[in-house]
Amino acid sequence: MNIDMIEAAAARLNGIARRTPLLSAPALDAIAGRRVLVKPECLQHTGSFKFRGGYSALSALAPEVRAKGVLAFSSGNHAQGVARAAQLFGTPAVILMPSDAPKAKIEGTRSFGAEVITYDRASESREEIGARLAADRDLTLVKPYDEPQVIAGQGTCGLEIAEQAAAEGVAEADVLVCCGGGGLTAGIALALEAHAPGLRVRPVEPEGYDDTARSLRSGKRESNAQEAGGLCDAILTPQPGVLTFPITSRLCGPGLVVTEEDALRAMAMAFRHLKVVAEPGGAVALAAALFHGHDLRGDAVICTISGGNVDAAVFARALDML
Amino acid sequence: MNIDMIEAAAARLNGIARRTPLLSAPALDAIAGRRVLVKPECLQHTGSFKFRGGYSALSALAPEVRAKGVLAFSSGNHAQGVARAAQLFGTPAVILMPSDAPKAKIEGTRSFGAEVITYDRASESREEIGARLAADRDLTLVKPYDEPQVIAGQGTCGLEIAEQAAAEGVAEADVLVCCGGGGLTAGIALALEAHAPGLRVRPVEPEGYDDTARSLRSGKRESNAQEAGGLCDAILTPQPGVLTFPITSRLCGPGLVVTEEDALRAMAMAFRHLKVVAEPGGAVALAAALFHGHDLRGDAVICTISGGNVDAAVFARALDML
Repeated sequence: MNIDMIEAAAARLNGIARRTPLLSAPALDAIAGRRVLVKPECLQHTGSFKFRGGYSALSALAPEVRAKGVLAFSSGNHAQGVARAAQLFGTPAVILMPSDAPKAKIEGTRSFGAEVITYDRASESREEIGARLAADRDLTLVKPYDEPQVIAGQGTCGLEIAEQAAAEGVAEADVLVCCGGGGLTAGIALALEAHAPGLRVRPVEPEGYDDTARSLRSGKRESNAQEAGGLCDAILTPQPGVLTFPITSRLCGPGLVVTEEDALRAMAMAFRHLKVVAEPGGAVALAAALFHGHDLRGDAVICTISGGNVDAAVFARALDML
Repeated sequence: MNIDMIEAAAARLNGIARRTPLLSAPALDAIAGRRVLVKPECLQHTGSFKFRGGYSALSALAPEVRAKGVLAFSSGNHAQGVARAAQLFGTPAVILMPSDAPKAKIEGTRSFGAEVITYDRASESREEIGARLAADRDLTLVKPYDEPQVIAGQGTCGLEIAEQAAAEGVAEADVLVCCGGGGLTAGIALALEAHAPGLRVRPVEPEGYDDTARSLRSGKRESNAQEAGGLCDAILTPQPGVLTFPITSRLCGPGLVVTEEDALRAMAMAFRHLKVVAEPGGAVALAAALFHGHDLRGDAVICTISGGNVDAAVFARALDML
């Protein structure tokens, strides 16, 4: 895993992935007590940064392998990213999703032409079902974060942040990244190491799922007591990735932890002041920027909104915070 | 009013206004039956395209005139655009707003440092109050659309559309523009006349406020029976502008008219598939693209989302459509 792979992924994604803007609003600066620059990956194709990694991975496969089809496990954002990438390549995608995934994500994945197979999170093993499907149908598994070409794709978001921060005159700042398995976090950290060494990545997680924050403190991969449940489905993972953790532990500052209520309030602020739709897991970094400023350094902070695939009922809960 | 004024406004706005992206989603293409490209000006500073015109107008004033302060009448989007532009220039802004304007817009205008004076739409004349204030305090009135430098600023959105449509390979299409007094419509039409002659602007209005559509048919400035009320506050104007109508009547195709329910459904589609927040008046063009395709020509349509300054309660009504 190195910066050359990220640059190569950027070349493959050029003209395919959307270059998301860097947003800001004086009202957010006032709440945070410093400049807040927001990278809204909810505006990326499929509504999350996952399209970058999915397309990067598929575009790196040998054409004859890719043509047989791909398989992914996902609660929804990686599912949609891989499904859309497969659709663009005209290759079949089979996606295993837990039956309790947000409706918007299951429908979204189907809308990109993928075959969605749901399983019961409590009683069935997605690894077993997936292994059988992959063998029976000769599909290539695209892992959500422990896959170099996926990390490289997510890293292209970091290349854009480096350029856009420079254009805003921001050379030193914490860069808050919504963190599940660490693919986006590791990818951005590698990109910034090479192109904006004054920008330091800090992972942000929801309470109860702070495996990365604890792992960064202890120096080894810690697990969460629970694997599912709660609003931040996009970033609930059992523990940091085997490939991602060595990168995040080398490059990232201390992790930050926010509550679900913080995430809902951040969604409301993104609605009111940025006019973008964030999902709870995608809003944790903005929540840390706005409501945990005492843990940050410097007069500017950059944060990702990693996705916006949220059911209307959950979004309505955020609006109720206004 | 000519293209040179728009190019000059673009130079003044360079690095100040946001270059909004051109968004799309396969699900919207499927609904519309053709490619749908969306220009989300809700992502512009202050949440609407009005920042372009406001900043253009203020930046064109002589510094000694500008320093005395500016005055605007507005239900909210022009208010915020002028207020933010004045804040950037460090000059006072006084904004006259109807007391029944959306709360988000009144608060937004205050948050940009403007002095907001509310009046009762039914019993008071904003023109009289404004004239008195302007005289007493030596303020310069910045009109919302019948002002050449405002039209020039809005036209910069059209320059971007011309470039972005070309990058997408779209040379011929209807360009649907949310239309109130016609500043954005006229500005975009002038920009496209010069830079993308295969793109034809068509104004979109809500039912009951279709003064521009009727005026384009009759060839003279027609009025609406009512001036206020309904959800689409951003684009409810008594009649086409004196400066804008000659431009729109020369350059635009027939107007389109949508219902409030269409606008709410389009807001819901923008939430689900584009992850942006549209206000009702800002969603009428997307509504026409999605739900009135029989009135359009060609295999692609471009539409503006002109603003996203909407109260949570109204947005919740749109979410209920999902």
